[in-house]
Amino acid sequence: MVFKKNKILSQGFVSELRQDFISGDWVLVASGRVKRPQDFFSKKKKIPETVSACPFESARINGEKPLLWYPHPDAADKDSPKNWFVQVVANKYPALALRKERSCAMPYEYGIYKAMSGVGYHEVIVTRPHDRSLGKMTAAEAALVVRSYRDRYAALDKDPCIAYILVFHNHGAGAGASIMHPHSQLIALPIVPPDVQRSFDGSHSFFKRTGKCIHCKMIEWELNAGERVVYENEDFVALAPYASRVSFELRIYPKYHDPHFNYISEERITTCAEILSAVLRKLYTALQNPDYNFFIHTSPANIHNGAHYHWHIEILPKTSIPAGLELGTGVDVVVVAPEEVPKILIV
Amino acid sequence: MVFKKNKILSQGFVSELRQDFISGDWVLVASGRVKRPQDFFSKKKKIPETVSACPFESARINGEKPLLWYPHPDAADKDSPKNWFVQVVANKYPALALRKERSCAMPYEYGIYKAMSGVGYHEVIVTRPHDRSLGKMTAAEAALVVRSYRDRYAALDKDPCIAYILVFHNHGAGAGASIMHPHSQLIALPIVPPDVQRSFDGSHSFFKRTGKCIHCKMIEWELNAGERVVYENEDFVALAPYASRVSFELRIYPKYHDPHFNYISEERITTCAEILSAVLRKLYTALQNPDYNFFIHTSPANIHNGAHYHWHIEILPKTSIPAGLELGTGVDVVVVAPEEVPKILIV
Repeated sequence: MVFKKNKILSQGFVSELRQDFISGDWVLVASGRVKRPQDFFSKKKKIPETVSACPFESARINGEKPLLWYPHPDAADKDSPKNWFVQVVANKYPALALRKERSCAMPYEYGIYKAMSGVGYHEVIVTRPHDRSLGKMTAAEAALVVRSYRDRYAALDKDPCIAYILVFHNHGAGAGASIMHPHSQLIALPIVPPDVQRSFDGSHSFFKRTGKCIHCKMIEWELNAGERVVYENEDFVALAPYASRVSFELRIYPKYHDPHFNYISEERITTCAEILSAVLRKLYTALQNPDYNFFIHTSPANIHNGAHYHWHIEILPKTSIPAGLELGTGVDVVVVAPEEVPKILIV
Repeated sequence: MVFKKNKILSQGFVSELRQDFISGDWVLVASGRVKRPQDFFSKKKKIPETVSACPFESARINGEKPLLWYPHPDAADKDSPKNWFVQVVANKYPALALRKERSCAMPYEYGIYKAMSGVGYHEVIVTRPHDRSLGKMTAAEAALVVRSYRDRYAALDKDPCIAYILVFHNHGAGAGASIMHPHSQLIALPIVPPDVQRSFDGSHSFFKRTGKCIHCKMIEWELNAGERVVYENEDFVALAPYASRVSFELRIYPKYHDPHFNYISEERITTCAEILSAVLRKLYTALQNPDYNFFIHTSPANIHNGAHYHWHIEILPKTSIPAGLELGTGVDVVVVAPEEVPKILIV
């Protein structure tokens, strides 16, 4: 039997997307560096806590010119890179490789399987100081973070090979953060990932049936019901979703219809930053600085039939570990009813 | 606006399945006991390490007659409950409630949403002694564990209200085990869970197109390729799947076609137990006792058109924490290529 070449092994590829033969879902094999078994031994995860050991403290992270930077809103000299408040750099340990070919990556076959090169972008959005997470920032600072998300999203959206851009943030070792210094990440993929596709399909099929946005309908219903609303301002609402995936899950929805995060206006960057830092502050206070992940779900990049979608932010506090039940079924288990969450986050 | 009653709040239900409004996926809200915020504060997970503090050491766990028990294969008096080696009991903190009505649970509406009572079974399969995990058991001991899985599966499969039965095992605090004493669990659900349904649909659509089992095709291809095969015996093969979801993922497939785990023969209980404990022993040795989850995927219960499916065991070592990238996309990231796994698990 003759096989096509296994690209991972034969060409030292940093990253390969592989499709599950039965479900059709994709995984990312990012095995550029050779690992030794001892790299996987169970051990207490150590993350540098001190400023002196932190790789995100320098004026030029990784010694390179940042992809984007903004000075601190209160800085006297706003042109001096020394006064940076937010800095976007390429991830030093990327999950995706930069594209070298002119043409976009295309799926190829490996025997019965399908794979494609894991080409795209993986960036890090770093803020200062070392110990101030988003929930503790001033409104002006938080707005600069959301603006950086939007600016990098808009820049990478121009690459026609990119199918989806995800902005995400890991807070705390239990949520998978390997560096304590507050930072967000952006990953730009050559495929629309399976979870996003399913949510996009659900919203599309509702739109075809009713001519309406399923998210708008849900938001209107939740605002009327009130029992799962945690916070709102003029443009956004934060609620504990009816079918929460984890205890204390929160979602921030624009009250206005917009499929695309990257079309957010200057005014709404401010109200978005306000609600995001307000609810993170509530989690910080009520649950004593829990670990959490958050990410932005928006319409796929380079798509022009996505009018039915509605961008939003999902915040997943990490108060338990998904185990065999969740991993074996895809049914997530929560032990706090979403209706209890606004009462606990009243702080 | 008038809402139907929220059953979780109004009736003190232990468990409710809720459907996501957009994706259609289900989650389980198991909020029977009132929780205080401090129950969710980040803290080192403490699991009782000593025999004296362990709830699974008594002759009668939970003080009740077990649902099933087997004596140790070497016990002199095999009729004495004192000599139990495996004991199956109802979970003291179940995620599902026992059904009280004669009729099966049916979905109901809550405003725009859909939910149903979380009725079913949640059992614990406990073995002795306290510190001997499956990878360290003798062949005869491991066979009794697999036999217990099969027996309880077969018993609950008779309930016509059950749509899916999952046997799973959590090993180590990092994999979500709350008790160190080796134990497996079984959960019987009134729905086919979304991950299983997708895999079942994939296998069904291949069967309709080709008249063949997609798993059989994949197993044959992998046995020929050889590069991802970790271990095999006369009836089973263990391999690192091409699109692994985590580093060192292993799947154990019967080489013979059978949709149903619970139809396993006495002889194959022995070969199944042999391969399962052999690969767990390999993980134990190569990765120094890593945390892991494993579960059995089999045809949905009470189904008679499932000839296309192929039961198997999935083993997911826990060597990293899924973070924003994985949670926001559904694309799992592995850092060890599946082709490297047999070389590392050669031990």
